[in-house]
Amino acid sequence: MANNAFVAAPPPLKDELDIVIPTIRNLDFLEMWRPFLQPYHLIIVQDGDPSKTINVPSGFDYELYNRNDINKILGPRASCISFKDSACRCFGYMVSKKKYIFTIDDDCFVANDPTGKAVNALEQHIKNLLCPSTPMFFNTLYDPFREGADFVRGYPFSLREGVPTAISHGLWLNIPDYDAPTQLVKPLERNTRYVDTVLTIPKGTLFPMCGMNLAFDRDLIGPAMYFGLMGDGQPIGRYDDMWAGWCCKVICDHLGLGIKTGLPYIFHSKASNPFVNLRKEYKGIFWQEDIIPFFQNLTLPKEATTVQECYIHLSKQVKEKLSKLDPYFDKLANAMVTWIEAWDELNPQGASKANGKA
Amino acid sequence: MANNAFVAAPPPLKDELDIVIPTIRNLDFLEMWRPFLQPYHLIIVQDGDPSKTINVPSGFDYELYNRNDINKILGPRASCISFKDSACRCFGYMVSKKKYIFTIDDDCFVANDPTGKAVNALEQHIKNLLCPSTPMFFNTLYDPFREGADFVRGYPFSLREGVPTAISHGLWLNIPDYDAPTQLVKPLERNTRYVDTVLTIPKGTLFPMCGMNLAFDRDLIGPAMYFGLMGDGQPIGRYDDMWAGWCCKVICDHLGLGIKTGLPYIFHSKASNPFVNLRKEYKGIFWQEDIIPFFQNLTLPKEATTVQECYIHLSKQVKEKLSKLDPYFDKLANAMVTWIEAWDELNPQGASKANGKA
Repeated sequence: MANNAFVAAPPPLKDELDIVIPTIRNLDFLEMWRPFLQPYHLIIVQDGDPSKTINVPSGFDYELYNRNDINKILGPRASCISFKDSACRCFGYMVSKKKYIFTIDDDCFVANDPTGKAVNALEQHIKNLLCPSTPMFFNTLYDPFREGADFVRGYPFSLREGVPTAISHGLWLNIPDYDAPTQLVKPLERNTRYVDTVLTIPKGTLFPMCGMNLAFDRDLIGPAMYFGLMGDGQPIGRYDDMWAGWCCKVICDHLGLGIKTGLPYIFHSKASNPFVNLRKEYKGIFWQEDIIPFFQNLTLPKEATTVQECYIHLSKQVKEKLSKLDPYFDKLANAMVTWIEAWDELNPQGASKANGKA
Repeated sequence: MANNAFVAAPPPLKDELDIVIPTIRNLDFLEMWRPFLQPYHLIIVQDGDPSKTINVPSGFDYELYNRNDINKILGPRASCISFKDSACRCFGYMVSKKKYIFTIDDDCFVANDPTGKAVNALEQHIKNLLCPSTPMFFNTLYDPFREGADFVRGYPFSLREGVPTAISHGLWLNIPDYDAPTQLVKPLERNTRYVDTVLTIPKGTLFPMCGMNLAFDRDLIGPAMYFGLMGDGQPIGRYDDMWAGWCCKVICDHLGLGIKTGLPYIFHSKASNPFVNLRKEYKGIFWQEDIIPFFQNLTLPKEATTVQECYIHLSKQVKEKLSKLDPYFDKLANAMVTWIEAWDELNPQGASKANGKA
């Protein structure tokens, strides 16, 4: 069937994809990824002290930006890029000129599948991004475009074409992505279950997007992939990817784009300190009780047909409805606008390409 | 954590569950299920010629109803029970007096998990039904109540209690549940992928519910588990379980109940004839293009707080909005009312118990 044409599609050439890595340390973890990632270009966003030197294993093709570079490139607009928080990674999304981004944390290693084979995470992300999503109706055999699968009986034929996939959200073996309270309560829990599936998050459903192992189509959703204001000088941390995920999901739903989750797995080596995490998270734990209903009830106007237009509308609603929670959201709403201005400045042709329906 | 208290919950005793099997043949397939199903009571609904004798392997505790029995018990209301179609199985749901139902097709055998161990499908269904569902927000590590899993970072704490699970939808290895066109195009496709997961179908999302390997809580959703008018004298077949699934999903969403899909697998032995299936399905293939938007846009009134009240409201909307598709839907809407009358007659205390919010 036509849909299986997608399964065998080759990964895009290296000139269509950048790998974005936020870091404060030497990138020794790349040694293990060499067979899979060395053909690609890396954008390294150095967090914290810019005078520190980051060692990148030899043979990798990369560009590196520290805080001084970000300030120089963005000028006053650099205020929208977080400092001392891995949220700074979104600067890499902005300076890339490629169609696809794969972003990975520097404590993520190559996972093995149940047969013991090393998982080529990037290849699976590319497969996910190259075949359509099916957000309008749930397929009980999961991604109908995977080899050996299809749409099941009762799946409307008019919905089988699917929609373009904007985001591929990969998972983690070993250390699960838990919040601080769950880390504290379950310090020994490890994720050992390899779930061999990919599925589309249905339209209208929010999910917690983790930035540890994530790929997306910059042309389709890039300008919404803003990781917010976290870390130094901000009252909150560890909600950067969550914020981006909620914004991206409502915009994808509005523009008719899809988000997949599941495979590929990476091996997450080390739990972050739950006490430090609790300090970063605790306001978010309160606030998300209001933020989630805000996103669940959000509607974007029909006239908003580009990601940028959607994002600006979203920023207005954040200002209007979330600022009463805390003045932080007023600042965040302003930063969202600054982010779009900076994006459009660095990506002058991006505005038209970013229309998911085009 | 408290949520894991559910994982180890024992299966309910045999006096809380009935197994419903629709059949036209001898039930030799039960031999393979003996270790798992013999402790439970079977309700066998014999389809087709009532003069034929169905052999049940010795040692099983069962009651058997043929068409004559159905006519005798329901009188003129027997018209709502399909004939010459496995949709007749819903009569078994109605005559049961137990809290839980597990229904299985007579060409479904015990599956093996990837380690080669026989899957106790019923035990997994019971686990699914005994722990809450999470339809309001997607958890990327799937069912947070499974052993070794939990809610991930960014999952709102106020939603972690979940909602009662009304339905557990199991899957099939070997012959996938494809429609006739897909069967014709992919005659050799087999499902060999064992996906080790259970997940909640999000609120607002429809799915194709297959009746082959299905369990549910009669007290919570029983009166909505009507398999419609199929087979003899009807213009359509093979949409019995789909119809029930769409009705159940909108009612579960309205009443705050959950539906899980995924594990357990059964081994589906034999593909039905795609030519025969095409004849049964082809009107459904057209009609579902209107039926799905109908269900997607359906709203039930706040005053409808029992399954029966929701179902009667639904029948009215079927009559009002789908009858223009075909006079069949007028007949179906009437049969939906008859079904509820018959249900309430056989389950006089059921009406109050059936409130998911009670």
